[in-house]
Amino acid sequence: MLLKLFKNKVKLTKVQIRACCSSVQGEPKGPSVKTPIPGPNSKKLHAELHKIQYAGTIQLFINYLKSIGNYLVDVDGNVILDTFSQISAAPLGYNHPELLKVFKNDDNLRRLVNRPALGLFPGDDYPEKVKNIFSQISPCLPKIYLMMCGACSNENAFKHLFLAYQRKKRGNKPFTEEEKTSALLNKPPGCPNLTILSFHNAFLGRTFACLAATHSKFIQKVDLPSIDWPAAHFPKYKYPLEENKRENEEEDRKCLAEVEDLMQKYEKKGTPVAGVAVEPLQSEAGNYEASPEFFQQLQKIVKKNNAYLLFDEVQTGGGASGKFWFHEHFDLETPPDVITFSKKMQLGGYFHSEELTPDVPYRIFNTWMGDPGKLMLLEVIIEVMRKQNLLDTVQKTGKKLKCGLHELESEFSNLINSVRGVGTLLAFDAKDENMRSEFSKKLLNKGVLVGNCGSKGIRFRPALTFEESHVDIFLDKFREVLKEINK
Amino acid sequence: MLLKLFKNKVKLTKVQIRACCSSVQGEPKGPSVKTPIPGPNSKKLHAELHKIQYAGTIQLFINYLKSIGNYLVDVDGNVILDTFSQISAAPLGYNHPELLKVFKNDDNLRRLVNRPALGLFPGDDYPEKVKNIFSQISPCLPKIYLMMCGACSNENAFKHLFLAYQRKKRGNKPFTEEEKTSALLNKPPGCPNLTILSFHNAFLGRTFACLAATHSKFIQKVDLPSIDWPAAHFPKYKYPLEENKRENEEEDRKCLAEVEDLMQKYEKKGTPVAGVAVEPLQSEAGNYEASPEFFQQLQKIVKKNNAYLLFDEVQTGGGASGKFWFHEHFDLETPPDVITFSKKMQLGGYFHSEELTPDVPYRIFNTWMGDPGKLMLLEVIIEVMRKQNLLDTVQKTGKKLKCGLHELESEFSNLINSVRGVGTLLAFDAKDENMRSEFSKKLLNKGVLVGNCGSKGIRFRPALTFEESHVDIFLDKFREVLKEINK
Repeated sequence: MLLKLFKNKVKLTKVQIRACCSSVQGEPKGPSVKTPIPGPNSKKLHAELHKIQYAGTIQLFINYLKSIGNYLVDVDGNVILDTFSQISAAPLGYNHPELLKVFKNDDNLRRLVNRPALGLFPGDDYPEKVKNIFSQISPCLPKIYLMMCGACSNENAFKHLFLAYQRKKRGNKPFTEEEKTSALLNKPPGCPNLTILSFHNAFLGRTFACLAATHSKFIQKVDLPSIDWPAAHFPKYKYPLEENKRENEEEDRKCLAEVEDLMQKYEKKGTPVAGVAVEPLQSEAGNYEASPEFFQQLQKIVKKNNAYLLFDEVQTGGGASGKFWFHEHFDLETPPDVITFSKKMQLGGYFHSEELTPDVPYRIFNTWMGDPGKLMLLEVIIEVMRKQNLLDTVQKTGKKLKCGLHELESEFSNLINSVRGVGTLLAFDAKDENMRSEFSKKLLNKGVLVGNCGSKGIRFRPALTFEESHVDIFLDKFREVLKEINK
Repeated sequence: MLLKLFKNKVKLTKVQIRACCSSVQGEPKGPSVKTPIPGPNSKKLHAELHKIQYAGTIQLFINYLKSIGNYLVDVDGNVILDTFSQISAAPLGYNHPELLKVFKNDDNLRRLVNRPALGLFPGDDYPEKVKNIFSQISPCLPKIYLMMCGACSNENAFKHLFLAYQRKKRGNKPFTEEEKTSALLNKPPGCPNLTILSFHNAFLGRTFACLAATHSKFIQKVDLPSIDWPAAHFPKYKYPLEENKRENEEEDRKCLAEVEDLMQKYEKKGTPVAGVAVEPLQSEAGNYEASPEFFQQLQKIVKKNNAYLLFDEVQTGGGASGKFWFHEHFDLETPPDVITFSKKMQLGGYFHSEELTPDVPYRIFNTWMGDPGKLMLLEVIIEVMRKQNLLDTVQKTGKKLKCGLHELESEFSNLINSVRGVGTLLAFDAKDENMRSEFSKKLLNKGVLVGNCGSKGIRFRPALTFEESHVDIFLDKFREVLKEINK
């Protein structure tokens, strides 16, 4: 497989008790805090923005000219170690020299500015570029569609599943007149009653169909109409995993039985499940993982019921698990039918199997069908990942961070628990929601930015260039926080 | 209003029987055709791309380094006058010198490459930039949300309508436990049965909710599940308008009565209409226009029924009607509640009224919430529009093109009819679908690219820099085509 490109290892920084300084060009030695965070300048800009755009979610204003590597520099001059990397969407950190070079090339600049409708009039370089980029990282799926963000990738991938499901059912028969006219009125038989099965706590995006497959937080869904699509329970393991093997296996069995039940139930009530959509690691809901065996069995159940399996790798894809795609950890007997991606990939899209290729034009289409500017950035990101063996870095960093968290979890078991995850896609729970909030605030004011997940989790989503030296800084600062709270 | 910025007129090219050469820097004098189009190089690239991405919609491969102004240069060296401008998404044509300058500025380049999650960590320049750009073009609505494409703009704008509708209904009462838990299961009362009313032949996008409000072509909808949302008839006028005034007024009345009926019917069956979504000009379906009186009455009906009015200006916004927003032609008594945009604007988003501002964070959110790189391009586009009085150009160009089409329509009434539209957002019908296809092919092989709409329409969506001299070229070539067919 071409994924082998990422598997030849070279020596990077030596693993030692305390890692040497970061190897990221131009980075400061550590955070430096000058004002309470958010500081006065951030607050002023917040008020300014709020006049024209609802700004209730905005945390900080950043100077992106000065931010560098894993460090954000905010508008009050605070230098902040970033473990969240724009919700996992900045794979090489800030102002990476190779990314800054891309549009200094005049041809690239022209291709950026002359953004075409890629589904109609792509540029001369487009086929070669798509082939070069995606053959290097293909999860053994032959075809690709490009989109712009995670939500529209999932929306269109769901459509792909429905179309394939109906095509299989219809055989070579053409559309009937009744199908054509009823489709225009949103009614069966033209618009068949098909469903997507997803999981409780899943987060698949916030557009209508994505939100119907999302069951993470009520605030994302309440007051918005939805549709009756089934949701099964996703395994919720007891930690530490080694000590709860039997219970966790039982949890897998229970969840899988529910998937099978729901598929049969929805088939019987005339709204069959055409596809099962699942995150390989439930990120937004709490970084909940499931065993390879769970996913292997899930794939079997999906196949048995003539449905398709979609992995949403929007947050997990792009290397942060230590493999390029998270589901590579599952050792599935065949690839899933669809893999959606975005975030670290800069644009959105999905890989799909040959069986899912449309047979008629304009079934899946939109104005832009991707973005050449983002493709050029992605090409360089993948090149840097390969040259600098960043999957290797992720594995080392993740291991060190997880070990460090386990140590703190033993030492401060009254404050934190349930360290979990793979690669640098790690998380732990605070004792409760208030304590989580205290952790975040105290860490930020020591110059470390972390993300939230679920109701009381802290989630790590650093850049791929986050190294062992950064882990040391985080662990030191977090130990300070824990000690302060424990006083 | 700040829209006045666009209203001071200066003399441009003199209107004369035959316009002088294009004033667009570096443009060729006219099309030049070297091979059949698509030529051998386009065909080769098509086959290449099809191996990795379904390429059934792709028409031509383009050299975007050489394309200039209103002219595409394809990979076979053909120079093609472009009247379609990437489905209306390239407002200044190709390689505009001002756009090529944007990222030569190092600060802009850094802001492009360091793309943040704008809903969490925007850049220091973001509030000022948003204010500067959008206050110049605001359709008298105070607030804005940014997205990335037309479909996600409509999806999120629909959510905005639903949230405001429920907020009004709920008053100051907090969410109940039942609402919270049922919402996570996609069920009422948490997920209420609300609907969006749209129109037959509407095209609002291809994600789930957008597609439920789209009733344009069956191929976009068949085999995909949908939801019971009402669709009323959009006026279908008889042409020429001046000769069919009474019938067309009667058509307005019939359509408006149907809107009112449907709103009452859906209210009664427990799925009230929270919003009415309408294109000011039905573009994809056939460039169908409706009178200002129709829209004025529609707004009254929507208000009377406690719903919100959304104008989808994704294709019509950005100046091609001769005003910045198409609905400015309607002289509404108050602004609509929401205006969605994308395409010419480079990114997506919507303006909304104060009433629609969320009162809780994370109701509307996604990773990127727009794109600073596109914002910087939009800023320059608006500056060029103002400096070069491009709304004035559009008005002149549109007038000349419409006159010319009317002349051809009189002369070749057996071949074309129903010339319609505003500004350069023009269209006409071919006698039938086959003839439309013949027009497109023959024109393309004379070096003129046109777009389709509806079942037998040809649609013009040129750049804002399309001038009278380009109209002359089009009209000459089209006359040749009509004569050849009429022989």
